[in-house]
Amino acid sequence: MAVADGGFRALDEKSLIEYIRATPALSSLLGDDLRALTVKEVGDGNLNFVYIVISSSGGSIVIKQAIPYIRCIGESWPMTKERAYFEALTLREHGRLCPAHVPEVYHFDRPLSLIAMRYLKPPHIILRKGLIAGIEYPLLAEHMSEYMARTLFFTSLLYRSTSEHKREARSNKFDLNREERWREDATADDICNGKGQQQWGSYKAGKQRRGEKNRSKPAIIAEYCGNVELCRLTEQVVFSDPYKISQYNHWTSPYLDQDAETVREDDILKLEVAGLKSMFCERAQALIHGDLHTGSVMVTTDSTQVIDPEFAFYGPMGFDIGALVGNLILAFFSQDGHSDNGKDRKVYKQWILKTIEDTWNLFHKKFISLWNEHKDGNGEAYLADVYKKPELWFLVQEKYIKDLFHDSLGFGAAKMIRRIVGVAHVEDFESITDAERRAYCEHRALEFAKMILKERQRYDTIEQITSALQNIPS
Amino acid sequence: MAVADGGFRALDEKSLIEYIRATPALSSLLGDDLRALTVKEVGDGNLNFVYIVISSSGGSIVIKQAIPYIRCIGESWPMTKERAYFEALTLREHGRLCPAHVPEVYHFDRPLSLIAMRYLKPPHIILRKGLIAGIEYPLLAEHMSEYMARTLFFTSLLYRSTSEHKREARSNKFDLNREERWREDATADDICNGKGQQQWGSYKAGKQRRGEKNRSKPAIIAEYCGNVELCRLTEQVVFSDPYKISQYNHWTSPYLDQDAETVREDDILKLEVAGLKSMFCERAQALIHGDLHTGSVMVTTDSTQVIDPEFAFYGPMGFDIGALVGNLILAFFSQDGHSDNGKDRKVYKQWILKTIEDTWNLFHKKFISLWNEHKDGNGEAYLADVYKKPELWFLVQEKYIKDLFHDSLGFGAAKMIRRIVGVAHVEDFESITDAERRAYCEHRALEFAKMILKERQRYDTIEQITSALQNIPS
Repeated sequence: MAVADGGFRALDEKSLIEYIRATPALSSLLGDDLRALTVKEVGDGNLNFVYIVISSSGGSIVIKQAIPYIRCIGESWPMTKERAYFEALTLREHGRLCPAHVPEVYHFDRPLSLIAMRYLKPPHIILRKGLIAGIEYPLLAEHMSEYMARTLFFTSLLYRSTSEHKREARSNKFDLNREERWREDATADDICNGKGQQQWGSYKAGKQRRGEKNRSKPAIIAEYCGNVELCRLTEQVVFSDPYKISQYNHWTSPYLDQDAETVREDDILKLEVAGLKSMFCERAQALIHGDLHTGSVMVTTDSTQVIDPEFAFYGPMGFDIGALVGNLILAFFSQDGHSDNGKDRKVYKQWILKTIEDTWNLFHKKFISLWNEHKDGNGEAYLADVYKKPELWFLVQEKYIKDLFHDSLGFGAAKMIRRIVGVAHVEDFESITDAERRAYCEHRALEFAKMILKERQRYDTIEQITSALQNIPS
Repeated sequence: MAVADGGFRALDEKSLIEYIRATPALSSLLGDDLRALTVKEVGDGNLNFVYIVISSSGGSIVIKQAIPYIRCIGESWPMTKERAYFEALTLREHGRLCPAHVPEVYHFDRPLSLIAMRYLKPPHIILRKGLIAGIEYPLLAEHMSEYMARTLFFTSLLYRSTSEHKREARSNKFDLNREERWREDATADDICNGKGQQQWGSYKAGKQRRGEKNRSKPAIIAEYCGNVELCRLTEQVVFSDPYKISQYNHWTSPYLDQDAETVREDDILKLEVAGLKSMFCERAQALIHGDLHTGSVMVTTDSTQVIDPEFAFYGPMGFDIGALVGNLILAFFSQDGHSDNGKDRKVYKQWILKTIEDTWNLFHKKFISLWNEHKDGNGEAYLADVYKKPELWFLVQEKYIKDLFHDSLGFGAAKMIRRIVGVAHVEDFESITDAERRAYCEHRALEFAKMILKERQRYDTIEQITSALQNIPS
């Protein structure tokens, strides 16, 4: 067990069991008999360690621990373990707004950067793996549109006053539970120092110990400014590295050598990427997940759960929508690499296209419904008194959605490009073992993404996008 | 002397003298003989009290105190006196970046919301009054372009890394003085609570008294989130009230009754205003002054000083540039109301147009120079490695400036409109005593502003704007 900064120690399977036994909030979830805990490390992501813990009496939890570097790169690329704090905060906030599609957080230990949350039992698998296996998820679009509409709408100025947005959602309709009070007691100062309440599970004791009573509520946007390191990682790997020579970039060589160079030399593409990067860095539109690709979603036929919001911050909504749609498009292009596994993928490709259409259209519908439902609420972006005339209200919503659609296409395309010529690739393509065939799929995806990034203003509907995908010659 | 919250008391001329005598940082500036202090209240703004203090030995200072309501409205419109904190902070920051055009702050007392700063001696007058009097300021464009270029560039992502932007400008090249260390010791927590260091003048003593050593540095964007009340005032009076029925709106009635109604019924105008409001609320592009009209500038023939940045926050650059340009255009339209005072205003109108052109063109030139000069620095919006090719670098800058130009026109037009049909009008028009004549000037200004707000994308150069102004039929 390594001992590191500020009380942090990287746990292993043995020390994790000791930790659980010493933590009532966890041991009580796992039942009486803690002698027979099964612990399995399953983290297949790029950053963290993830353990499934099952007790003989049938209790189960997942424990996720952030370590102070990027797991898939190693200690040479340090990365603040405070990301766990932002992940826990966002799981709570998004979970409050959309409990059906966000796993419950049971416990957070800040010094250990450790989150205990609901174990998403089998047959839950990572959506990306399901897409590679060619499995249809009939409720995916319904669920993801619900998650995005609710989390994005309720954390935006369409629902909140500017005070609530910049400072604190004091007047929202949801009851605050103990953990949320904890969050409200934390301050930006605590975040920077890595101080503050140690564990949600010991909220009151800690508060009394520190002799604190009425500390100020944290600034919401301000608070997430503290997650700047994770934002910087996105800025680098999505908006910068793919467009320059970087030691981290790679691609299916030699087939895509020319493609990678073309990306680096495409002035118009780089001009568009600059605009998106500025929006990513400057625009606090809503509390976004920040990494909503198909690897951040766990699914069964009837359950859809969004995980891993450690990149969360106040950013542009289109970054979330684009991440999901862009990764579904990558899945679409990768199907030609999987189609000879004894299963015809033509029908499946149509299902992906239909899912892309439904995801956007349902999102659009639900988002507008929420907006109409709350049009006389606290939201200050479009005051009812100013925009009450029905035809103007319609115009305003149409423009908002159109801009959001174009933002989403732009961010989605940028996320596609970086998965083909940047540092972190997707299993959809990586699992195609024949390099030439993989390169064929990737090349087509890359060309499509570049076209969308540069010409997205020409598209008004998601059907125009799926139709363009449909009609790409082999 | 009224006693109010948290140690605050509204000073008057008598208690101010007592305060100065008890405050070494101030009394030392005024010389030895404090028996003969002359104090004069000169606040003609909408919000605060301003005192000029002169000693018999020739020392002088200005004391500005914020009160917890809007002075021109009364106690019925409360407004946080914490605005003085943001004003002091911004005077220091902008003063550091552009010392030639920002008055020096000598002392700040947070509980009293009191700022002591350099007295801008006669013949300094408020620029707006000079414009009404028909006085030419040959260096105005040069100075204001310098102020805007430096304050906006150095607080943007063109100069700063995203860490510096969101957290703290650690690595900038400017030396920190004692007061700036004070600022760095303050935290978002302090700001919300109104706690923290009481006075810059007693920095070290306070620090020792509290036993503090290495507190975390504040989040820059986060910190200014605390100025949300002032931002909300702008949101209301600039982007909302003029477009709806509001008890605070007024205009030159009955002449402009129809004009005011037309503004409230103009759907396209309101759609454009919504976009600008979103940008104002969501986009943290740079630390802007937030209220840069011609009443926030004091001038002589060779000195230009920007005052009153209490509305400062991280917002869109175009809001500052637009405020200045929009108010110069108001001055232009008001000249026809002043032209019979025994002085021909035709030449003066040409000078205003030339000043508008020079202000933008010099800003453009200086801003680009700063950008080129620092292109290999910390700025992360456009990495040199990605955009190094000269023709692409040019393209990028051209697009940035074009977008900024359109933002500035939009915000400038919105600021013009609100000064004609909103709550706070400008002396340029108010000083035209003949109501019909005033309405004539206001109507023309309003029509021009509406056209620009709706059609600003059609304009590429400032000369097209001044030419349009030139060619409006009488």
